[in-house]
Amino acid sequence: MSDSLPMEKPSKAPPPVVNRAAWPKPWAQLKYFTFQPAIFPRLLGQVSPDARPGDFVNVYDKNGQLTGGGLFNPRAKIPLRVVTHSTEPVTEAYFETAIRRAVALRRELFKLDETTDAYRLINSDGDGLSGLTIDRYADTLLCEVYSLGIAQRLPGWLPLLHELAGTKFARVQVDHDLGSLEGIKPSTFKETNAAAPRLVKIREHGVRYEVDFAEGHKTGFFCDQRENRKLLAKFTRGARVLDLCCYTGGFSLNAKVAGGAEEVTSVDLDEAAIAQAKRNANLNQARLKFVHADAFAYARQMQQNGEKWDVVVLDPPKFIFTRDDHGNWEGRQKYEDLNLLAISLVKPGGIFVTCSCSGLLSLEDFEQHVIKAAHRQNRRLQFFDRTGPGPDHPVYSNCLESRYLKVLWARVV
Amino acid sequence: MSDSLPMEKPSKAPPPVVNRAAWPKPWAQLKYFTFQPAIFPRLLGQVSPDARPGDFVNVYDKNGQLTGGGLFNPRAKIPLRVVTHSTEPVTEAYFETAIRRAVALRRELFKLDETTDAYRLINSDGDGLSGLTIDRYADTLLCEVYSLGIAQRLPGWLPLLHELAGTKFARVQVDHDLGSLEGIKPSTFKETNAAAPRLVKIREHGVRYEVDFAEGHKTGFFCDQRENRKLLAKFTRGARVLDLCCYTGGFSLNAKVAGGAEEVTSVDLDEAAIAQAKRNANLNQARLKFVHADAFAYARQMQQNGEKWDVVVLDPPKFIFTRDDHGNWEGRQKYEDLNLLAISLVKPGGIFVTCSCSGLLSLEDFEQHVIKAAHRQNRRLQFFDRTGPGPDHPVYSNCLESRYLKVLWARVV
Repeated sequence: MSDSLPMEKPSKAPPPVVNRAAWPKPWAQLKYFTFQPAIFPRLLGQVSPDARPGDFVNVYDKNGQLTGGGLFNPRAKIPLRVVTHSTEPVTEAYFETAIRRAVALRRELFKLDETTDAYRLINSDGDGLSGLTIDRYADTLLCEVYSLGIAQRLPGWLPLLHELAGTKFARVQVDHDLGSLEGIKPSTFKETNAAAPRLVKIREHGVRYEVDFAEGHKTGFFCDQRENRKLLAKFTRGARVLDLCCYTGGFSLNAKVAGGAEEVTSVDLDEAAIAQAKRNANLNQARLKFVHADAFAYARQMQQNGEKWDVVVLDPPKFIFTRDDHGNWEGRQKYEDLNLLAISLVKPGGIFVTCSCSGLLSLEDFEQHVIKAAHRQNRRLQFFDRTGPGPDHPVYSNCLESRYLKVLWARVV
Repeated sequence: MSDSLPMEKPSKAPPPVVNRAAWPKPWAQLKYFTFQPAIFPRLLGQVSPDARPGDFVNVYDKNGQLTGGGLFNPRAKIPLRVVTHSTEPVTEAYFETAIRRAVALRRELFKLDETTDAYRLINSDGDGLSGLTIDRYADTLLCEVYSLGIAQRLPGWLPLLHELAGTKFARVQVDHDLGSLEGIKPSTFKETNAAAPRLVKIREHGVRYEVDFAEGHKTGFFCDQRENRKLLAKFTRGARVLDLCCYTGGFSLNAKVAGGAEEVTSVDLDEAAIAQAKRNANLNQARLKFVHADAFAYARQMQQNGEKWDVVVLDPPKFIFTRDDHGNWEGRQKYEDLNLLAISLVKPGGIFVTCSCSGLLSLEDFEQHVIKAAHRQNRRLQFFDRTGPGPDHPVYSNCLESRYLKVLWARVV
């Protein structure tokens, strides 16, 4: 049933006569009833001719009823991003409200500052700010911009953001291709970025990390696994731990520093990530055994050697990029095969922590592949938790498809 | 896909010639390939004629391959409960291993004693001990027995259980009808029960409760919501909290005592539960506003009055008891309607915590009903967590259907 419940019942009566001339401009009208924030071209009806790229527009539903407000850009893949739904008129003032609400969620409700100075401050659709994610790393905001409307407004929001978050600098990233498509001027954030540090140090649950904005994929640090890193540390006292796809060492360091593991083996194929993980280990005066290798190849070798660990963590990069059958199948097989190998390395009675960050794979399907991987080698998993990202990665009820991270926790029997 | 992945591929070759005479007795053979613990009559093939009710039997698969061990009872609704899968012979010694493993999970791995003296020690299929659940309340074990094989063995296990758990007493409960069907003698646990206290006091995260074994449904205390009770307390400082279906006051007391809520209104229709909740409130010197009312009626009245709360918790009893379409639909409608009412009582920006303990309703379907309840009144939910029971309620990978509790956490926008 999951996807089949209608969000709103389409009226069966003939559409009412609509007087578009009376609508406050600029406006855009939806072709279908939907509460989802991303309005793709096929969902978009008429748009008032005065609407310029980046404008905030009033959004009307199919019947001509005001239904919210959003950012318009005819050139974009998503020409309308609805940021809020309301039958009352919405103005640009919405954005300040949304920003204040997002920051308050992290700082006042979740009190994240008590345990870390690295968290997601704005989670795009999950905060009613479609097209903008901001991670806060110590005194620097790392902003990722996905739409022209956001790019136009962000410079104006930064002082407020700094005031609310207690930060000083911002680095703004716009993907090159997306920027050209959206029409975002590459120079927009040049000065802002030039003033920001290239590198900051952050702390999380007593572990320290270096966050390097210049290098590699993303920042080398993912806030989303924060609570899972903390949970892992509960199970690693005196244990031999294997961290497959260790990236910059988050799980490894929590196992060792916070969790008191006897020995941690940290495997990754990405040289830059391993180098960063080593710097992070040094920052915490922790000794980890680093292995620069492909997780499949390493696990297969260890399987052949008959090696076993008390705790195995598997947090691979995204394997599923497409809804198309073949690509999807290939990614699913990768998950199953790598989980099979990883499970074979867990001692009987040991702990297995397995993650998927593929948004196109549901929690249930992921779990079924992991179960199959265990049952194929006649082992059983005793699941004791299923978790997701931390609460600073909220998801709106009209945009569940922005969910991606799921983590299964099991004792392997 | 969730349920469609085959657990094991049935062989297409003709079944091998099987020499049952060579199998160590007693034994039972499965008609189909399955790893599930509950073998219903249609799944059960031949059974060695010497197998007596309650016997531990070797379990062979369809092809005559040894596949595990289980408890047999021809009179039972579930005539074979497989407790472990293994291609090596299994003996009665398995049970001691399983018991030790289960207790170690709670005490050594999860270190539950640090925060409470009330937790589930044995979770039936989730601990490879199909037909037995044991909750530990201070110095007393509350055992629920669902099969003859368990009833026969439990007296022999109690000394070990007390030694491992540090408990002194046990109360053993057998449902009357189930007991007759299984052939469990009502006198089996008379002496054990007579020696046990009728009432104990427990503590959990700094809150105290009275657990009354004699009265009402179950014990009046559910260990499964422990971590959720704790999480709630994070969001209630200075807040007005409504606890709909408060039962014996677990969420209410955490909101007030641990969470520092300004005011907590606790509603339940069950008079005995309300009375127990009042005693629990007194134990903690906490003042709660109790309302003895049906949650639907109360919420409807408050909706009409325009009352709103900062935090609303909704933890209703099970609404879905049957897979049949009508009963299932009725239960789903109840969830949707009660969630709609509850959401209408949350202030804009307030917190909504909603639970379902219906095992026949999946997490995804439950979430869809809750979303529909919000969208029907043109409100959005900002989900920031989805949780289940605490880790002392593990689930085996071959028996996911034993999952039941899911809790959604959202800010209502």
